[in-house]
Amino acid sequence: MDLARKVDGRVERGDRTRQQILDAAVDIASVEGLEGLSIGRLALKLEMSKSGLFAAFGSKQDLQLAAVDHAAEIFIEQVVRRGMAAPRGLPRLWSLCESKLEYMQREVFRGGCFFAAASAEFDGRPGPVRERIAGHMKAWVDLLAGAVQRAKDEGHLQTGVDPAQLAFEIDSLAQGANWAYQLFGDAIAFERARLGTKARLEAATSSPARSSGRRAARRKPGPPRS
Amino acid sequence: MDLARKVDGRVERGDRTRQQILDAAVDIASVEGLEGLSIGRLALKLEMSKSGLFAAFGSKQDLQLAAVDHAAEIFIEQVVRRGMAAPRGLPRLWSLCESKLEYMQREVFRGGCFFAAASAEFDGRPGPVRERIAGHMKAWVDLLAGAVQRAKDEGHLQTGVDPAQLAFEIDSLAQGANWAYQLFGDAIAFERARLGTKARLEAATSSPARSSGRRAARRKPGPPRS
Repeated sequence: MDLARKVDGRVERGDRTRQQILDAAVDIASVEGLEGLSIGRLALKLEMSKSGLFAAFGSKQDLQLAAVDHAAEIFIEQVVRRGMAAPRGLPRLWSLCESKLEYMQREVFRGGCFFAAASAEFDGRPGPVRERIAGHMKAWVDLLAGAVQRAKDEGHLQTGVDPAQLAFEIDSLAQGANWAYQLFGDAIAFERARLGTKARLEAATSSPARSSGRRAARRKPGPPRS
Repeated sequence: MDLARKVDGRVERGDRTRQQILDAAVDIASVEGLEGLSIGRLALKLEMSKSGLFAAFGSKQDLQLAAVDHAAEIFIEQVVRRGMAAPRGLPRLWSLCESKLEYMQREVFRGGCFFAAASAEFDGRPGPVRERIAGHMKAWVDLLAGAVQRAKDEGHLQTGVDPAQLAFEIDSLAQGANWAYQLFGDAIAFERARLGTKARLEAATSSPARSSGRRAARRKPGPPRS
C-alpha cells in the first residue's frame, strides 16, 4: 500500500468498497457462473445503484475480469500461501495438495472451486476472460510441477519422476473430488483424493537404496501421513 | 421400435427430426452451456419456427432435460458400448477408460465432455436438470466401479483393491485431461491420463504369487499396453 492510500481515507474506503463488491461478484459467479454476473445482478445483491457499479467497472467483461483476478488472489491466499508455508521438498508438495483439497472442501467459494467452474464455463468462449482464467490456472499447474521438481532436487522423490506428469495426476484427483462433492454432495471424495495422492507420492518417493551421496545425507521425510 | 412406428412414416420422420433437433441442442449446450440453450436460440440455429419447437419440447427446462438424456445416449454409445465390447475383467476396465479418453479427445461433443461442462454449470442449481445430470453420472461412476469389481472377481486385480477408490482415481485422470485439453488445448494431457491410468492399474494388478487356486488357473492378462 503506497503512502497516498494510507493518508487518504477516501481511497482506502474506495478500495474497501471495491473489495466488498468483488467478494459479492465471485460469490455470485461461483454458483451462477461468470455469465450470470451482470452489473444489474450485482447491483441487486449489493443494493447499490447500477450507475455506481458502471463507474467502477465499465462493462460486464471488465467486471468478469476483475472477478477472475479477485478469485485468483483468494486462491493464492488460501491455497498457495498455506501450502508454501510447509518445509521445502515433499512436505511442501503434500501441503500444496492438502491446502487445495481443504479449500475445495471448506467451500471458500460457495459453489466449490471457482476456477473449476469458470474453466468449464469459459473454455469454449474465446476472448480475454478465457485467457485470464487459463493464465491463472497455468500458473497453478506450473507451481505444482515446480514443487515436484523441488522435491526431486531435495532427494525426496525419485530422479525418474516427471514433474509435469505427477502434477497432472495429483491435481486431477483434487478436481475429481471437487466434481463429486459439488454434484453428489459426496464428502468421501476428498478422502479418496487424499488417499490417492498419498499413494501416488509414496510410489514416487525415493527409497534409501536409491539415494546416495549428498542427497542421502539430508533429512528425508517419510511419506505424508494423516 | 414398436410396430406402429415402423408402419407410420410420419412418426418415423417425426423421430428423425427430433433426433436432429436434439443433436443441435447438445452441440449448442456443449459449447455455450445448457443455460444458453433456449428455444429461440435453437430455432435460429435450425432455421425452424419457435412455435414448432415449443410444440415438441414445451419449455426450456423440458428441452434441457431432453438434451441431457440425448447426450447420455451418445455417451453410452461412444463410451460404454465401446468399452464393454472388450473381454471381461481387466481388459474391459482398461477399455472403458480408453473409450472415455478417446471420446473426450475426438470431441464427440464440440465443447469436450458434455457431462463435465453440464456438471460444472448445474451443480449449484438445484432442480430436475441437476438431478438428471447427477443420475447419469452416478450410473457411469457405478459402472466403472462395477468393472473394477468384475476385474477382481476374475482374479485380475488384487483382492484388497477398493472398487470405488480405484474408479474415482482413474475417472479423475480422465476429467483432468478433458479440463487441460479444453482450457489449454493441451493434447498431451490425454497421454498423461493414459500413463497415469496404466500405472494405477498395474499397481492394482494381482501378482502371480498372490493368485491361488481357481483364479490363478484362469487366463490372466498382462497390464494394459499401448
